[in-house]
Amino acid sequence: MPKSDRPLTMPLLNDRLAVPDAPGLPRESGAWLVRLSPGASERAVQGLADRLRGRLLEAAFHDLGSGIVSIGAARRDMLEQTLIEAGVAADLIAVDTPHRLVRRDAVPAGSRVRVAGATFGQGFVLVGGPCAVESRAQIQAAARAAARAGIHVLRGGAFKPRTSPYAFQGLGMRGVELLAEAGRATGLPVVSEILDPSHLERMYPLVDAFQVGARNMQNFELLKALGDVDRPVILKRGASATLEEWLLAAEYLLAGGNGQVILCERGIRTFNPNTRFTLDLATAVQAKSMTHLPVIIDPSHATGRPELVLPLACAALAAGLDGVMFEFHPHPEAALSDGPQALRIEQLDELTQRLARLAEGIGRGMEPARGDHPPA
Amino acid sequence: MPKSDRPLTMPLLNDRLAVPDAPGLPRESGAWLVRLSPGASERAVQGLADRLRGRLLEAAFHDLGSGIVSIGAARRDMLEQTLIEAGVAADLIAVDTPHRLVRRDAVPAGSRVRVAGATFGQGFVLVGGPCAVESRAQIQAAARAAARAGIHVLRGGAFKPRTSPYAFQGLGMRGVELLAEAGRATGLPVVSEILDPSHLERMYPLVDAFQVGARNMQNFELLKALGDVDRPVILKRGASATLEEWLLAAEYLLAGGNGQVILCERGIRTFNPNTRFTLDLATAVQAKSMTHLPVIIDPSHATGRPELVLPLACAALAAGLDGVMFEFHPHPEAALSDGPQALRIEQLDELTQRLARLAEGIGRGMEPARGDHPPA
Amino acid sequence: MPKSDRPLTMPLLNDRLAVPDAPGLPRESGAWLVRLSPGASERAVQGLADRLRGRLLEAAFHDLGSGIVSIGAARRDMLEQTLIEAGVAADLIAVDTPHRLVRRDAVPAGSRVRVAGATFGQGFVLVGGPCAVESRAQIQAAARAAARAGIHVLRGGAFKPRTSPYAFQGLGMRGVELLAEAGRATGLPVVSEILDPSHLERMYPLVDAFQVGARNMQNFELLKALGDVDRPVILKRGASATLEEWLLAAEYLLAGGNGQVILCERGIRTFNPNTRFTLDLATAVQAKSMTHLPVIIDPSHATGRPELVLPLACAALAAGLDGVMFEFHPHPEAALSDGPQALRIEQLDELTQRLARLAEGIGRGMEPARGDHPPA
Amino acid sequence: MPKSDRPLTMPLLNDRLAVPDAPGLPRESGAWLVRLSPGASERAVQGLADRLRGRLLEAAFHDLGSGIVSIGAARRDMLEQTLIEAGVAADLIAVDTPHRLVRRDAVPAGSRVRVAGATFGQGFVLVGGPCAVESRAQIQAAARAAARAGIHVLRGGAFKPRTSPYAFQGLGMRGVELLAEAGRATGLPVVSEILDPSHLERMYPLVDAFQVGARNMQNFELLKALGDVDRPVILKRGASATLEEWLLAAEYLLAGGNGQVILCERGIRTFNPNTRFTLDLATAVQAKSMTHLPVIIDPSHATGRPELVLPLACAALAAGLDGVMFEFHPHPEAALSDGPQALRIEQLDELTQRLARLAEGIGRGMEPARGDHPPA
Repeated sequence: MPKSDRPLTMPLLNDRLAVPDAPGLPRESGAWLVRLSPGASERAVQGLADRLRGRLLEAAFHDLGSGIVSIGAARRDMLEQTLIEAGVAADLIAVDTPHRLVRRDAVPAGSRVRVAGATFGQGFVLVGGPCAVESRAQIQAAARAAARAGIHVLRGGAFKPRTSPYAFQGLGMRGVELLAEAGRATGLPVVSEILDPSHLERMYPLVDAFQVGARNMQNFELLKALGDVDRPVILKRGASATLEEWLLAAEYLLAGGNGQVILCERGIRTFNPNTRFTLDLATAVQAKSMTHLPVIIDPSHATGRPELVLPLACAALAAGLDGVMFEFHPHPEAALSDGPQALRIEQLDELTQRLARLAEGIGRGMEPARGDHPPA
Repeated sequence: MPKSDRPLTMPLLNDRLAVPDAPGLPRESGAWLVRLSPGASERAVQGLADRLRGRLLEAAFHDLGSGIVSIGAARRDMLEQTLIEAGVAADLIAVDTPHRLVRRDAVPAGSRVRVAGATFGQGFVLVGGPCAVESRAQIQAAARAAARAGIHVLRGGAFKPRTSPYAFQGLGMRGVELLAEAGRATGLPVVSEILDPSHLERMYPLVDAFQVGARNMQNFELLKALGDVDRPVILKRGASATLEEWLLAAEYLLAGGNGQVILCERGIRTFNPNTRFTLDLATAVQAKSMTHLPVIIDPSHATGRPELVLPLACAALAAGLDGVMFEFHPHPEAALSDGPQALRIEQLDELTQRLARLAEGIGRGMEPARGDHPPA
Repeated sequence: MPKSDRPLTMPLLNDRLAVPDAPGLPRESGAWLVRLSPGASERAVQGLADRLRGRLLEAAFHDLGSGIVSIGAARRDMLEQTLIEAGVAADLIAVDTPHRLVRRDAVPAGSRVRVAGATFGQGFVLVGGPCAVESRAQIQAAARAAARAGIHVLRGGAFKPRTSPYAFQGLGMRGVELLAEAGRATGLPVVSEILDPSHLERMYPLVDAFQVGARNMQNFELLKALGDVDRPVILKRGASATLEEWLLAAEYLLAGGNGQVILCERGIRTFNPNTRFTLDLATAVQAKSMTHLPVIIDPSHATGRPELVLPLACAALAAGLDGVMFEFHPHPEAALSDGPQALRIEQLDELTQRLARLAEGIGRGMEPARGDHPPA
Repeated sequence: MPKSDRPLTMPLLNDRLAVPDAPGLPRESGAWLVRLSPGASERAVQGLADRLRGRLLEAAFHDLGSGIVSIGAARRDMLEQTLIEAGVAADLIAVDTPHRLVRRDAVPAGSRVRVAGATFGQGFVLVGGPCAVESRAQIQAAARAAARAGIHVLRGGAFKPRTSPYAFQGLGMRGVELLAEAGRATGLPVVSEILDPSHLERMYPLVDAFQVGARNMQNFELLKALGDVDRPVILKRGASATLEEWLLAAEYLLAGGNGQVILCERGIRTFNPNTRFTLDLATAVQAKSMTHLPVIIDPSHATGRPELVLPLACAALAAGLDGVMFEFHPHPEAALSDGPQALRIEQLDELTQRLARLAEGIGRGMEPARGDHPPA
């Protein structure tokens, strides 16, 4: 259910999509992260919000949780004065980047994002499944294989963004239902791509996380809609998006009120013709250090080559990232989309076991497996 | 009004978004363009459509006008048999590209697309205006300047896709209304960008053409929605889109039933840091020769440099393209978005006059000016 | 003959490859263009040079001709003092770019570069010929066709930089000789690519201009060697070179003492798979406005598609550039390298005639044809 | 000393830079790898070579060592006949790629390349040092720090390819001498970049390996010269080179007779402005699996950011690559080139220790340290 229709258990401090940045403000103005002292009461925070509104401060006020709020476009002296009047002790951190809420100094320890039972931002997480849900039998077989192999989250596309109007467009809502059913049957959380805000209401009860695809990373209407729900979002980087554009797309989600965001690097478009895209691991590492959000990679779409999934997943783990999303299929040669880039079910065990050994070897560990491990 | 709600004056032959391509079909199967003989009656075409449906041919049947239809995924012998039975004489052209309806051999002479009084695909057409509609005064001043200078179509963004959630997001529907009002006041057709299918109904009565921006070129839900309306669409190439992806995005519109499509090259993303994007003129020329659609360029977004608009517009004209879209602003230094790339009003006359001289010099001519040329 | 072995008719003012930029110099220091007053005597210039050297100014002193010199890394007050003592009146122009000698303000009217009888930087110039010299018959046939069609300069590769060690590597010096012979027979100037400084001495007597290929744009040893000869250089932009890197490669030539440089844009490497490279016309236009050097394009290598040569050549002409270099071949289907991108001889007349009409239409004109127009 | 001047201890079977590929050859023709049976005598190989020459086979004959030879452009039946007559038992492997000698099936177990005491292609190897040799004190300090930290090979540029003619160009041969001296003092092998064939003779006695920089990857004259020496070459991938172009550049070296080649990925040019280049790890992994050559990465040049060196080095190790080359400097803030991308000496221990732990954790191990570990 969209947040704005829910009974609130927390004060809603979020002035959505605030005023444009005012370049004419005096030098001591700007955007601020405010770290409230640990013991700040909810009432104190509410008092602060009221005071800021009463002053008609041109401020956006975002509660990031953990006693950290973000204020847009305020003068330092007025902000300090307001904090004093509200009796709230706090540190002020000037924000000098266009992205504010995703900055690592907002949550220095890093955010953890829970997708049903699986936690991103802690152990290494595996998200796997077929490119598209094609039939009950196919997605059930995939789900069982995923659970057996220790994959943590099941993926499967239902609304497929296809380059050609004549290509298989996915099963639509029927596909989402089949995915959810397969998830329930195996105890695996499920994630599926959302293409349009109008699908949100029907998908919401069925998926544990929404995926925003590379082509939609700057579909701002979709981002605004997803900013208003309490479901995690896996936000893929656009194939020609800069780091800043990617972080600002995530900022749309947080500014909308949804802090449950996982970043996913899936390859950028370059001259290199040997892989579908070029996996930009360095930028994924930068995203990890610049934000508090979990960051994963998708080597299947990045390269289109199943033999590269394992070495690149190892690379991501060794480089400190939080997980990997990849495609496998019970019958790659019969897949309705992207079959050639899918791993086979028989390859899953080697993948998960080698990653587990590497995770152990570097003293980090994998996210514990969550599936019900039913017999085949 | 969306087409599907309109009373039809033509038989609706359009089976939307047909079956997936069936790779298992025998060798002689495929997609076909069918050129009916000049005198083919509407009744004959209807009979052909009925017969194809009666046979449960796995066929998509698109009426491209001018007695040309497109058939997807049929066997040649069955298709020939059906044509004979329907008493329709025709040439069959095998389609060997993923894109079918946009191919030049569908309309060898090239399509002309009318945006209210302005025709694309004939004389050279100028589309100009501010990046964003900011106020009544601003857009009225821009419209008057456009009409005076002989610009053919007024552009102005109302829903702005902005990288940052904190940047000016446009005036929304209020901006569309102001744009329409400025168009009426000066006799200029107007075009504005649409971001989401949910805006379609309200924008429809106000704009003479929809623009699909580069970030939305593969927003397939939006393309499907626009395929169902009888309004021209200016389809910008995505910043990382290949020629084939661009043509297939256009194919979505034609396959949906909307043949009024203008392609616009606006720069691709490359390593080159000196222009915002890299204008890919060669691909625009290829798009012109491979399709029957008019093709224009947008040097303002492609380069971000106003001083490059005129030389690149001259280049487009000399290379045989159909028009140019560019940004100007009454007060670039005060613009709320993309001011630095806008031309000044005082520069418009030189632009239009030099292009008119060049158009005359190469024996082609400009599209006749349409604005009412009101006194300033 | 390399310049340094020639008897000098002008004082040699050129301190080659001066000191590194000294970031620690006081604010009023920097590099300077010095425009001497029109009547400045050679003796005055010599006196200025002597004084600068006497002061151990950390200065590079380049004589650009036309009474303009460039001084690197000097303090303004010391420079002014030296000019006063030398009795030389001059304007000082602070240089704030890494490239100095190629800047347009060094020669505001633009440089003209003569390749034997053909002048670049005035009328539009056509440089054409086969990718590689393959035999006497082939290059003679090409030369005659070029002369007949009104092409101004004959090109032909002798040392071929080939991606594969097993591909045809060119005829080497024998190819240069055959090219020179064909040039003499038809009265056409000839240009050929140089790959290595060690070839310079033998090629020097035979070619009217050297070409530096895209792969060698940053072969700085080659650039230094060519800076020391009195032969024009056509400097191709590297496939992944920025505008600044391209201009600095030209700066190597000018800093070495060779001001006869023609810039040639030949496509950059991008994700676009439909043309070999992506012609970056906007950057060519920028290069033209930022430097005093003639700028041409090579649509054959940029696109690999002969059908794009004419429209892109027209675009370059209309955009204000100085010429086009392209490939044609008497028998493209039998060519030993790059045959598919070559025009046929029968297509040359249409090319040259349409460009001539366009040049006339925009009031600019072509460079007068130079070949001897021998009967076929 | 160039090979061609050395007394030969092995029969010279190498017909340099053979005939062009002959597209007209019958279908059963092609290039071949010939694996001789283990016990093949040198005399048998010589007999085979003589017979092939005697037949005027259009063949290039390369001895890859280990009883494997490569034959270019031969007909299968004639090749089999010749093997029978020569009494040589062998497997024939048809070569269907433009690159032949670098293919993994030529040396399935992978080649090991020794740079003095350090072996590439076995344990993980660290190559480190300053971008440029600047002074005796600087390079000696760097060498001591490298030896102490367990770095295996000392790098340092003497001939610097600099974008600007006014930038520090390196110390030239003096720099090579200082580097060699520092290597001797610490027991570390040294590698330095070569820019031009004319430097080869003087550098040969001083360096343990030559580096070919990204800008020179397609300087084919340089590659030909290096193919003729018995010194290892670290071949950097060009910033806009495809995988195939990179492998063919290596092929030039092997075809010239030098099989001691190490491939180094150092970032490709893409639109991404946040790192200097984009490290293309996936292509490095592909190069490793497609060739028998060791493959390393250079994260310093790829990203320009010292904080990314360690995570990307860990990624390379985990992905199965053979080493890392990086820059450090005793005083990065005073470096004459690329200072901001250099690590500090104090950071070396953490780098080498964390890589050693990871190498141990995955059961692979580091190359043993070679420096003399002198006291500071």
